[in-house]
Amino acid sequence: MKKVILLFICFLLLSFVVIAQQQRHEITIPDILEYKTLKCDLHMHTVFSDGLVWPTVRVDEAWREGLDAIAITEHVEYQPWKEDVQNDISRSYAIAKPLADAKGILLIKGAEITRAMPPGHFNALFITDWDVLNGPTYKEALQAAKDQDAYIFWNHPGWQQKDEIPIWYKEHSELYHQGKMQGIEIVNERSYYPLAYQWAIDSNLTLIGNSDIHAPMDYDFDIRRGDHRAITLVFAKEKTLESVKEALETGRTAVYYEDMLLGKQEYLEAIFKKSLFYDHDLIPSPGESATVKLYNHSDLPMRFSLTQKPEGVKCPADFKIDPHCSVLYKISVDKDAELPEEFFISYSIGNFLTAPDKGCEVKLVFKRRNN
Amino acid sequence: MKKVILLFICFLLLSFVVIAQQQRHEITIPDILEYKTLKCDLHMHTVFSDGLVWPTVRVDEAWREGLDAIAITEHVEYQPWKEDVQNDISRSYAIAKPLADAKGILLIKGAEITRAMPPGHFNALFITDWDVLNGPTYKEALQAAKDQDAYIFWNHPGWQQKDEIPIWYKEHSELYHQGKMQGIEIVNERSYYPLAYQWAIDSNLTLIGNSDIHAPMDYDFDIRRGDHRAITLVFAKEKTLESVKEALETGRTAVYYEDMLLGKQEYLEAIFKKSLFYDHDLIPSPGESATVKLYNHSDLPMRFSLTQKPEGVKCPADFKIDPHCSVLYKISVDKDAELPEEFFISYSIGNFLTAPDKGCEVKLVFKRRNN
Amino acid sequence: MKKVILLFICFLLLSFVVIAQQQRHEITIPDILEYKTLKCDLHMHTVFSDGLVWPTVRVDEAWREGLDAIAITEHVEYQPWKEDVQNDISRSYAIAKPLADAKGILLIKGAEITRAMPPGHFNALFITDWDVLNGPTYKEALQAAKDQDAYIFWNHPGWQQKDEIPIWYKEHSELYHQGKMQGIEIVNERSYYPLAYQWAIDSNLTLIGNSDIHAPMDYDFDIRRGDHRAITLVFAKEKTLESVKEALETGRTAVYYEDMLLGKQEYLEAIFKKSLFYDHDLIPSPGESATVKLYNHSDLPMRFSLTQKPEGVKCPADFKIDPHCSVLYKISVDKDAELPEEFFISYSIGNFLTAPDKGCEVKLVFKRRNN
Amino acid sequence: MKKVILLFICFLLLSFVVIAQQQRHEITIPDILEYKTLKCDLHMHTVFSDGLVWPTVRVDEAWREGLDAIAITEHVEYQPWKEDVQNDISRSYAIAKPLADAKGILLIKGAEITRAMPPGHFNALFITDWDVLNGPTYKEALQAAKDQDAYIFWNHPGWQQKDEIPIWYKEHSELYHQGKMQGIEIVNERSYYPLAYQWAIDSNLTLIGNSDIHAPMDYDFDIRRGDHRAITLVFAKEKTLESVKEALETGRTAVYYEDMLLGKQEYLEAIFKKSLFYDHDLIPSPGESATVKLYNHSDLPMRFSLTQKPEGVKCPADFKIDPHCSVLYKISVDKDAELPEEFFISYSIGNFLTAPDKGCEVKLVFKRRNN
Repeated sequence: MKKVILLFICFLLLSFVVIAQQQRHEITIPDILEYKTLKCDLHMHTVFSDGLVWPTVRVDEAWREGLDAIAITEHVEYQPWKEDVQNDISRSYAIAKPLADAKGILLIKGAEITRAMPPGHFNALFITDWDVLNGPTYKEALQAAKDQDAYIFWNHPGWQQKDEIPIWYKEHSELYHQGKMQGIEIVNERSYYPLAYQWAIDSNLTLIGNSDIHAPMDYDFDIRRGDHRAITLVFAKEKTLESVKEALETGRTAVYYEDMLLGKQEYLEAIFKKSLFYDHDLIPSPGESATVKLYNHSDLPMRFSLTQKPEGVKCPADFKIDPHCSVLYKISVDKDAELPEEFFISYSIGNFLTAPDKGCEVKLVFKRRNN
Repeated sequence: MKKVILLFICFLLLSFVVIAQQQRHEITIPDILEYKTLKCDLHMHTVFSDGLVWPTVRVDEAWREGLDAIAITEHVEYQPWKEDVQNDISRSYAIAKPLADAKGILLIKGAEITRAMPPGHFNALFITDWDVLNGPTYKEALQAAKDQDAYIFWNHPGWQQKDEIPIWYKEHSELYHQGKMQGIEIVNERSYYPLAYQWAIDSNLTLIGNSDIHAPMDYDFDIRRGDHRAITLVFAKEKTLESVKEALETGRTAVYYEDMLLGKQEYLEAIFKKSLFYDHDLIPSPGESATVKLYNHSDLPMRFSLTQKPEGVKCPADFKIDPHCSVLYKISVDKDAELPEEFFISYSIGNFLTAPDKGCEVKLVFKRRNN
Repeated sequence: MKKVILLFICFLLLSFVVIAQQQRHEITIPDILEYKTLKCDLHMHTVFSDGLVWPTVRVDEAWREGLDAIAITEHVEYQPWKEDVQNDISRSYAIAKPLADAKGILLIKGAEITRAMPPGHFNALFITDWDVLNGPTYKEALQAAKDQDAYIFWNHPGWQQKDEIPIWYKEHSELYHQGKMQGIEIVNERSYYPLAYQWAIDSNLTLIGNSDIHAPMDYDFDIRRGDHRAITLVFAKEKTLESVKEALETGRTAVYYEDMLLGKQEYLEAIFKKSLFYDHDLIPSPGESATVKLYNHSDLPMRFSLTQKPEGVKCPADFKIDPHCSVLYKISVDKDAELPEEFFISYSIGNFLTAPDKGCEVKLVFKRRNN
Repeated sequence: MKKVILLFICFLLLSFVVIAQQQRHEITIPDILEYKTLKCDLHMHTVFSDGLVWPTVRVDEAWREGLDAIAITEHVEYQPWKEDVQNDISRSYAIAKPLADAKGILLIKGAEITRAMPPGHFNALFITDWDVLNGPTYKEALQAAKDQDAYIFWNHPGWQQKDEIPIWYKEHSELYHQGKMQGIEIVNERSYYPLAYQWAIDSNLTLIGNSDIHAPMDYDFDIRRGDHRAITLVFAKEKTLESVKEALETGRTAVYYEDMLLGKQEYLEAIFKKSLFYDHDLIPSPGESATVKLYNHSDLPMRFSLTQKPEGVKCPADFKIDPHCSVLYKISVDKDAELPEEFFISYSIGNFLTAPDKGCEVKLVFKRRNN
């Protein structure tokens, strides 16, 4: 009896210590075609420009949130803390690199060339020399980036415009034609610019979406509850810096923002096909109906709107499937319908946008059973 | 019809911008006795020592989480980023001060004197000169703090000890008797040291609980879901620096950690009394029973265990009341019970600890109805 | 040592049992004027008509969710489970009553007179005899209710109408003039009928909002995360059935739906005044500015839009305050402004609607400091 | 301009209607060996005995929560609502069957034979006649079930025992030897009986875990946040009633309770192997280290404790991997270690219990790279 009391007292005076172990929450968006789907954030800041965190925080956040590649892009021309923090924007790369290597995060050298509108701010990635980007005019700065074979895109095009609606100035045309504006942020932080999306389609600019985070990430995003920063999906041949650059130059990207995917029909449809599982054979004979389970294996919700169906077939017009959920999909075939052995029903996915006003077109493909 | 289409197109190209507005989530723990209950975190770091955020982040976090006073306490002897960040630990106070003033947060000047165990780390608050704290020995450093009339407490006493169980060395006795160890962290970050709590009671050391946060706060605590950092409740005459100091010196504090309150019976009982609302008159005559609603107005859950009741009364033995919730409490009086007109039922609140192994004693007080 | 092992083995074979204790989450909406603000749901179903739960579940749910009064209102004409469940709709009242009494929930006798549109469905409350409500025509049924001095309102007026937009038929005019339509559901379940709200204003019909729940409540509402059913706030002299009836007849109600409050300016403004705490004295002299903390003590978020301010004063135009949160509100007074000693700034609360398109008008009242 | 105003007014009077669409949240626990992993709840009640919901609710809940098979098992001897609900316990099966078919849920005929302890309550599944189970003694009742070739298991063995610790009476031995007790609930609702688990191992009883739910499911479980009822995983050849029965009779089950999996080493290890993805080739040469990503594709967290490793290898001793998360796992090989080309490191998974006090033994298998 005494022993038990003794144990109890010992127990009372033991320290209670909780060690929080870091884990990475993987983003379930499938690889497509012959590419790896790399989750990338190409625009962020630290205390080395006007950000509020130490560079290693950006790597920790990215790893924890399931990202594959990031670029820390300090303002070339703006370091408000320079009274206290060394005025060398290459330092955030140097400080973050060892941790990025240990965590398996690709760290892209980058900087934000920060000029008045027009033409506004531009990110230069895959640079080699930060010191030469500070030319007297934006032209010299961007030329210096180009001379390093940088990949350059226009940041938050609605910045400082009325109602944040972007304006395409002649300066942008010039940069575009000189190959100094290869992509455009259609999403920056929580802002989405449909007009920029339309421009990107019209001019074949690479689609970019980034966090442009300055504060700690959890401060602005409810990460623990599945909220996520805007990211660029890069469809790369391999998980290497070279492959990321090649994919950006070739325009093989999509933007993942809130519950939306923005990109080309080809890529969005491929993601859809690899994400939705169902039995293609479960199709009724004329006069009968069948129920098929549609199972969404991805982290992306899908909102369906019917666009086309064979004559004599009845099926749901509007429905959605949340991540890792399934729904029952009922198909009825009219008694006197003449269906081919293989047929399809077309839907538009309302949150997979292949243009500002256009959902991704997808097909549910079925085979009729013979009997 | 055309107008509508036009409108639709305009709408499509409008930018979608979300502006996150900061709000402060107030902590509902009542003022007690003649004091204001100030919510304080007296131990935290920024990039000016080994922390990972800019000093203003500490103010924003504190304001958002409902705190009233904080001390940023950089390590005097340890600045791993000094290659990049200016080697002057008073800067975090200077940088944070304007925002603290704007937000109404009391900002206490402080530093962490960081020596090997024994005696380990000590926080010196209300200091005036950071530069003199870096003496060759801990004795000189703490003397320099004392010379400034600093308030000094022992940090995370289990640090570097086996199983984090603290050891009280002769050095601590000496500092204690010299008035250079006025308080002790019984909670640091997520670690609770019951043994330190017992020492604090035995030696009348002020109870302190702090976050010692280095990373962004949301990274370690699920703030949005009501998770909270460990804080020191300071029962101060006014919301001023002087009053905070006077309360610390007098030992008028309690520690709020996880769902626990650690402190003297007097203060915890007062918090209980101001938090629990119920009708004292709803009491049955002999042979009858009555149900009383117990309504917990505070953010603190309360776990009740029965300790004493009048003869002839039946009532619940164990129950809990979550924040802003109520429960129905049924009292039955035996047929032949002889109850005084006013009586009470005693409970121990299992998560309000007045010693490592002792719940706060509280009374539910009732008046019998005459008829 | 052996003892410890023994203890360990015993521990291993102990059963792990979790007893879930019920708690009531109180709704923090203040009493106003000389009335108690009773939280009421006046429309719900059980297995005794076409609902899916036993009657006691409705009481448990209501108690747990902080309600004060409910009416279980089975369909008079529709009991799809009558093959298995007794065909007597008064039974749900009889079965629920003992639990309602034990929990302190006011249980109102009621039924839903369920006819084709027009005139559709009507709830009759405070009835005494369920058996006579099944007359051959709706006129006879409603007359039978009226003969019992029932309180009668029109349910979900958009039911079965195109796009759920309600239509007021001549039948409704007739019932209205006969005093057989004293109120109208402007919210039913998750549907809000702005047109019905306008009618209620124009015809002085009592505003009603109910859950009309058939399934278990948690199935449709995320109760644990603060989601709540639509309810009718009844401003009653006392918490009694008579007082609820008097308030309904007099039109002293408001509707609480999602994050919106729908009702008369008088009641909504009173709720606002009792919910928002701030220091009225903190006002700057000309040429200065001051920051006031606005603290929302209620469970209702508040979205402010500026409508009127004195000349020479600058203040925020749009902001919101979430439940139990505070914001800092900055007022600047121009150098040469001539402000009276006491003045106010007017806002419209966008989620407190006094008409379908009109926010509640509120004033922030301040006194200038003399010096 | 007028058009816009008109549109605005129209918009204001439109009804706001939210239609909640049902979705099924799939449970990600893999199929193993040559079996399908069916998620089953074999014990639940409705208003046809002492439950609180209509039978279809049990099917809706099961479908929504990702279950494959259920049994509604009303008490044969106890129908407290029989004054109002028809006294025929086969009705809950009949009422639920059409919906179960439509949803693709296997509905098993069952009943709970409800006698005093000993021997307590038993569930009989796959019965054909409910009427004959009500014999005067438990022996007759269980014999009547056996005569129908029922599958029979002992429910909540700790029921009505001191501290809910089960007692095995001679009656249980008798039933066991007569083949009338083929399985045992080691988990019922939120209660886990380690002693029953040990008995099941010793006597080769099939492991069963069920909800025994009476109330609406969301009332007791926070389903929306990933909380789940206790279920029996049945490793069946096909998703048919026959296969479920065969698997139960053969003992091919495991129990999924809170974050724990209880079952035979063979099945738990197979689930582990199909759930954890990692690259087996990433192994360092002597004197080097390598980091491997361990990615948990399942809904089951995994808590690892090291049990065995090759000499000369350093690796993490304790860590966990949450569902759909990955961790980085670092292996270091001593300079002079002599490792075979293929080797393994053994862990015990602390929340996969193959006995009350024994974690599932698993191996991380690696191949050394040749160079």
